[in-house]
Formats: sequence, C-alpha cells, structure tokens
Amino acid sequence: MTTEPTTTARDYIDGHRQDLLDDLDSWLRIPGISAQPDHHDDVRRSAEWFVDAARRTGFPTAHILDDGPWLPAVYAEWRSDDADAPTVLVYGHHDVQPVDPLELWHTDPFDPTLDGDVLRARGASDDKGQLLFHLLGVQAHLAATGRTSPAVHLKLLIEGEEESGSPHFQELLDAHRDLLACDVVVVTDTGIVAPDVPSTVTGMRGMVAATVTLHGPDLDLHSGVFGGAVPNPATAVARLVAALHDDDGSVQVPGFYDDVVELTDDERALFGKVPHDDGEFLKVAQSRAVHGEKGFSTLERIGARPTAEVNGIGGGYQGAGHKTIIPSDAFVKISFRLVANQDPQKIVQGVDRFVSEHTPEGIVADVAWEGAGVQACLVPLGTPAYTALTEAIGAAFDGAEVLPTREGGSGPEAALQQATGVPLVFLGFMLPDDQIHAPNEKVSVPLLYKGAEAAARLWSGFAEVGATALRTGA
Amino acid sequence: MTTEPTTTARDYIDGHRQDLLDDLDSWLRIPGISAQPDHHDDVRRSAEWFVDAARRTGFPTAHILDDGPWLPAVYAEWRSDDADAPTVLVYGHHDVQPVDPLELWHTDPFDPTLDGDVLRARGASDDKGQLLFHLLGVQAHLAATGRTSPAVHLKLLIEGEEESGSPHFQELLDAHRDLLACDVVVVTDTGIVAPDVPSTVTGMRGMVAATVTLHGPDLDLHSGVFGGAVPNPATAVARLVAALHDDDGSVQVPGFYDDVVELTDDERALFGKVPHDDGEFLKVAQSRAVHGEKGFSTLERIGARPTAEVNGIGGGYQGAGHKTIIPSDAFVKISFRLVANQDPQKIVQGVDRFVSEHTPEGIVADVAWEGAGVQACLVPLGTPAYTALTEAIGAAFDGAEVLPTREGGSGPEAALQQATGVPLVFLGFMLPDDQIHAPNEKVSVPLLYKGAEAAARLWSGFAEVGATALRTGA
Repeated sequence: MTTEPTTTARDYIDGHRQDLLDDLDSWLRIPGISAQPDHHDDVRRSAEWFVDAARRTGFPTAHILDDGPWLPAVYAEWRSDDADAPTVLVYGHHDVQPVDPLELWHTDPFDPTLDGDVLRARGASDDKGQLLFHLLGVQAHLAATGRTSPAVHLKLLIEGEEESGSPHFQELLDAHRDLLACDVVVVTDTGIVAPDVPSTVTGMRGMVAATVTLHGPDLDLHSGVFGGAVPNPATAVARLVAALHDDDGSVQVPGFYDDVVELTDDERALFGKVPHDDGEFLKVAQSRAVHGEKGFSTLERIGARPTAEVNGIGGGYQGAGHKTIIPSDAFVKISFRLVANQDPQKIVQGVDRFVSEHTPEGIVADVAWEGAGVQACLVPLGTPAYTALTEAIGAAFDGAEVLPTREGGSGPEAALQQATGVPLVFLGFMLPDDQIHAPNEKVSVPLLYKGAEAAARLWSGFAEVGATALRTGA
Repeated sequence: MTTEPTTTARDYIDGHRQDLLDDLDSWLRIPGISAQPDHHDDVRRSAEWFVDAARRTGFPTAHILDDGPWLPAVYAEWRSDDADAPTVLVYGHHDVQPVDPLELWHTDPFDPTLDGDVLRARGASDDKGQLLFHLLGVQAHLAATGRTSPAVHLKLLIEGEEESGSPHFQELLDAHRDLLACDVVVVTDTGIVAPDVPSTVTGMRGMVAATVTLHGPDLDLHSGVFGGAVPNPATAVARLVAALHDDDGSVQVPGFYDDVVELTDDERALFGKVPHDDGEFLKVAQSRAVHGEKGFSTLERIGARPTAEVNGIGGGYQGAGHKTIIPSDAFVKISFRLVANQDPQKIVQGVDRFVSEHTPEGIVADVAWEGAGVQACLVPLGTPAYTALTEAIGAAFDGAEVLPTREGGSGPEAALQQATGVPLVFLGFMLPDDQIHAPNEKVSVPLLYKGAEAAARLWSGFAEVGATALRTGA
C-alpha cells in the first residue's frame, strides 16, 4: 500500500537520530563475544535483542536460528506487498571481538560513550552500528516512499559467530537454503575509504592454506659428524619458500595466475582514484617498506592480486644459544590469497606439484591442506545491482563519486555467494581507523545516518531494477 | 737408566691384560657425568681414581687441577731421565656422557659387563678405556726398552668436562700454560675406521655459529589485510638461507673458500683407501640420500670441506592448524664448519656482509654470533710426528697401512693446538659402532691392547725423532 510520501529519507532519519543512538547504546551493552564460551549466553542475549528490535521496526518475521551447531543467528523477513519485487538478503553479524587487552581501553568497552560524533564501544562499528542503520533505513524507506511494506522482499541474516571465523556458517547456509533464497545479497560488514570518500568493496580474496612438512633424517643428527653430507630439511624448506617468488615478487607456482581476472585499465583508473598514501599505510602496518608483486600499487597488491605468504616456519633448535644439529624435520605454513576466478582446488594441485618438484632427493614432503579453501568473491562493476548500490551511496553523499575498493581478506561472503548463487554487493560504512579488532573501537555516528539513507534509497533502486536484472547481472 | 729389555711391548701387554680390565671395571663404576650437576661429586671421584691409578703406574706427579671454574681435571707427569728428550702432552677426558634413555640399555651402564672381547659400560670407549691403554702402554714401554723412565717427558692432561662442551677449557689452558708446555700433543679421544683398518684422525673441523634474526612489521599482521604488500621476514629468512648454497651445494658467502687448504691428489688417494660405503653411512645417519658439495665424496664432504648448516629456523605461527599472519620476526640458527686454514673471524665478517646484502628493504637484520668461533685443526701428513705415529700404530697392527681420516666435528683440540703452539697427532681406537654417546656404549678390548702397544712404541719413536723435529714438523 502506498500513500503520498510526507518526507525524504534524510529528513526522516534526521528526525530519528536519537532512536538509533538509544538502540545502539542498549545493544552495545551486551558483550556477545563469540570466541569466548563464557560469553555465549551473551551472544544469545544479543541475538534476542536484535529479534526484538527487528519486530519493533516492523519486521513481521524475526526469530533466532539455532537448529544447528552455530551460535544463535537471527533471521528476519519483511515481504513487500509487490509479489514480483526482488528479494534482497542482507548479511551481517551481531557477535563481537574479544576486548583484551582491557587495560588499553580508555573507556569501558561495554559502556558506550558518545564523544561528539564518535561513539566508542566494542561492536560500535563492527558490526552492530552498521546493522542498526538498516533498521532505521527501512523505516526511512517506508516514510520516504509512502509505503507500508518495503519495495523489496527484505531478508536479514545476522550471524552470531563471524568474529570466531564463522566455523559453522556453511552448515547454517546448507540447512536454510530455501529460507535464504534471494536475487541479490547485500553484505554489511565492510567500510569506506574515508569519511568524505564514499566507496564500496568490490572483491574479497579467497584462500587456501597448507602446512608443508619436510622430513630428512629420522633423528636429529650431529652437524659436525654429518654436516655437509646429508640433506638438511630446514635448508630444503627454506629453498622451497625461496622458490615460491621470483625477484619481482611474482608467485612461481606454475599456472598460479592462469585464471586470475586481470584489472582492466578502467578499473585501474578507478582504483587509482582511491586516496592512498604508502607512508600512512606503513604506519598502520608498522612496517618499514612496501614490498610485493612488481608492476602493481599497494592497493592492487592487496585487493586484486593473489599472494603466497608464509604464516609460520619452523624446524630444529628453537632455544637460546646453539645446538649443532641437522634437524630431522622442518615445516612451513603457507597461505595463498586468491582472487577471482582462481579455483582453490587447481591452486592446491599446482602447489602439491610445486612442492614435489622442489623436494630434494632424500627428503620426504607432506602437504596438509586446511579444508577445501575459500573462493574469492568479486563484484563486477557496471551490473544493475552495482549501479543501484553506487547511486544509493552516492546520493547519501550528496552525489559524490563512489569508488570501488577491494579487501585483501577472506570472509564468509564467498560461502554466501556460492550458497545463494546471486550477485553480492557491499554496503558498509566502517572507517579504516575504527579499531574494529583492537582496543577503543569506535564508530562515526554521522556515517551510520548516511548508511540508513543509502539503505532507504537502495531498496527503491533495487525495486526499479527488478528481480531478474538483479539476479542475472544483465 | 736403561737395562737390557727382557720382553717386547706386546708380550708385556699380553701378560698384563687383566690389570687393564680390572682398572677399567673399577673406574667405569664411577658415574662421572659432567653435564649433570648431581654427578659432579662423581666427576671428582673419577679424577681422584685416575690420580691414584697414575701414581700406581709410576707417574711421580699426579694431581687434580681444580684451581679454576672447570670440573676436576687431572695432570700427571713422568719426566724422562734424558733431559733433552721431547716433551709429549697426552690429552683425554675422564668425564662421561649422560645415560638416558636408561630403558634402552641392555645392562647397567655403570656395572661393566665383559662379553667375549666386548666390554659394555658408559665411558668404556669414550674415553676411559682409551686413557687406560696409556697407563698400560707406558709400563710396556719401560719393559720393552729396559728403561726406568719413559724415553720422553710424558705429561697427561685429563679433562673433566669434555662431555659438556669443555666450557672452561680455554681458561684451564690459560691458567696452566707453563705446565702444559710440550713439543707435541697426542690426542686420545678418537677412533679408527674398523677393527682391522688402522687409521688416525688428521683433521677436525672448526666452527662459527650465529643466530640471524630478521625483523619485519613491529607486530604480527593479518595476512589478508596486508599480505602481498609488505616484506615478510619468514620469507626473507628463507631466501637468505636459500642463497647460502648454489645448486651444486657450494657455499655462496663471498670469500668462503679463499683460505681452504685443498686436498692434494695424494691425500685424496689416501682418503679413497678408507673403507666407506654410502649405504652403510645412510643407515647410521638414518637418512635417505647423501647430499653435499658437488665433486666431493661423503668422507671428503665431512672431513675436508667447510659447510653452512641450518641448525634451527623459526618464525610466526608454530601450532596446529593455521593462523593467517605475516610474522613480525623470523630467525635462523646457522653453523659454519670450517677447515684449515679458514679464519673464523674472516668467515664471521663475510657472513655479516652476506646477511646485510641479502636483507630486503624494510627488514632489519641482527646477527648474533656464539663466541669467537673455533679454528679447524689439521695434522699435515708426512711430518716427523705423523710418521712416528703411523709407524707405532702400524706396528701394533702387524705392519698394516695406517690411513688418514678427518673428523667433521669440532672439539677442544683446536684450543689445545693454539695454546701449545705445537703439532697435534691423534692416537685413539674407538670404533664407529661403539655407541659412544648412546645407550649400550662398548669398547673392543683387543683394540685397547693394541692402543697400549702403539703408545709404548710411540714414546720410543718420538724420542728418536727428537724435540726440535717434533716441534717444528720438519
């Protein structure tokens, strides 16, 4: 049902700013730390809080999903009066990171503190603040359109264990595949480049990770008596790692780049518009130099290029001083970040062969992979969903250009994309300095209002595009 | 004083076999484990036992050296009646290795068990058995020469902490430089190739060892967020180690081989005569392939070639599964075995430069050396001392050719050589399968009698050569 709208989304939001702040204050007081079992009751309370908030907002359906091994997730649904409207699934999470070291916090992490435009508390930005802009957003959407139901069938899936690595997310998706069916997924767990530089994530890297163990002598040998005459597995593991990259930082596993979707000139030009300063980057990275694949910028290296990175290496004597042995074993833990369209299983096979070819005679190699790996996800620029998204965000920023960015990390989004089989877009307004996994997490409150406005506009935009165009991307 | 000899050295020894066995049984019951402080009283008892045995043998001087931080060592001296006789310093040690794992011993390690020609006990071969052949040997020497004092001024230095790495040996040498003055040193702590293949050690490798730490980011970084864009110290340490050798196993530190005394063709021919089977070697090394510097045999690689060997490597995540970080630090512990005439300090400087040149931008390297290093020691073939030694050993083996071998390890011998400034020779009859640092140590009793005979003959041989020729090697 639609009546003549009496306000704009922005005006509605401006009139209800305190509602969002009050809700956020109340929700942030629940320490739903999923990584800590003694906080699992709080994770449930946090889920219950959001069920209640969604119902207050008007969602006719809102309940906890806990019919599996996952911590309580929330599912909410508000169907459009228009039966043909597209179905949108919003993904986020209500659990939060641990707070230690507590002594580094300037305020109690679970006693939210408003300081001008900044609200400080654990979860303020990641992800409770972002999720609450959706609740305000849908109300603004209704007010601005004069509707009594959203212009899209709106589904919310709010996970409860993202901060502990989403260990059961695939099971949750498998168990609720029908419930989660949709035409487009909106992920709300990411950020923008700067307060005045609207942007949207257009890719997250995938990953495969392995522990490679090289076995040499069946016992540690005296390096005087045997040194120089038998293969040393620590040397072998070092030579294996060294062989992974050439001097230009290019990964040498044959076929590694075969399926990589290369950046187009247009994309590189857009990436180039994203404000970035290597000096500032190095301060955040607490590093002394940038380093990586030749021919790519830091942002491209992180977002658009696959990597081979050593996460751990070990073998032989680890203590103080010296022990003159040839170690029996050495290992390296390597993770490969993948980009679209790399197939994790092809990379696994290529690395298996690479290890085998770089294992010297007399050394036995074992490669243990961590699970099946995670595929990268990529939001192609220029699809109807992407265009609607950037228009909605741009409008919330008074017409500023919305830049595409890419995340270097890997999250549950790839599993979402595979489970739903539809395009993903990313709507989230965290800031790089929000300290989301560190002490003194904070959120910029004005950006939450902008998020609500972008969401309010996005549902209308998606409705205009229609289900088929959203789903097929054409 | 000399009278007409009434026997040969061998006959004398054959008539006194039980004396050596009785002495050995008594001494081996003292568990003088220098590495274990609760056995340090036993180390003293062991030293006292040898003082008493040396006196019984006829040494006019025999006492404990304990005026420094070292565990009790024994000094004994028996001057020749011939004032111009050469002075010989015999070096050995009376302390023994620990016995754990005790459950792998078939007999009590400190209850010596004679089984045919084999005597089993901790220290039977390393080094108590070897030292007792010197006591029987000097008596045989007197009987066979009709002398009442040895043909050489005989000094014994029996260390008490060789099995814990001779940590105070340099101090002992410095404190007793005058006492230990001599024309030649006879080291008795090594072995021969096989029971029927007499041989003598002609070199021991030196060593320098360092821990190289590479520092990257000031904290562990998320490998998704930063991976591929900053230098990874674990990758850098692997590339450093990989750069140490070329594909032919040759060490790539510039100048590394500059001062190496290369084997002559004659020496290689002699080395070639030493029975060696890589298959048997691999069984002992519990390894699957030989490996090393191209163009050299296994024995040459161990005895005559310097090495760079990784003793330990580490950095980043060491536990089960995976942690996707770029580690802040990584380290490698490297030891370089040296041969004559490599100067440890030149190698240290070369490696320092090599590390610096192989440290990528953004990584900070720290190289911590273990002490000042140990020089290699080399017994040149064909010197008067060497010829007298091989003649004495050869005679004990009924004229068999005595082959030169080299040890890959490093011991206190280099310090002895530097402190005394005179040539070293090696007289010891351990066997490769004597299990000297393992459970079920044993010694071949007939080889101890041959050792006694060789010693008896050696003192006469050295006396014939004379002090100056021994000392100068010409």
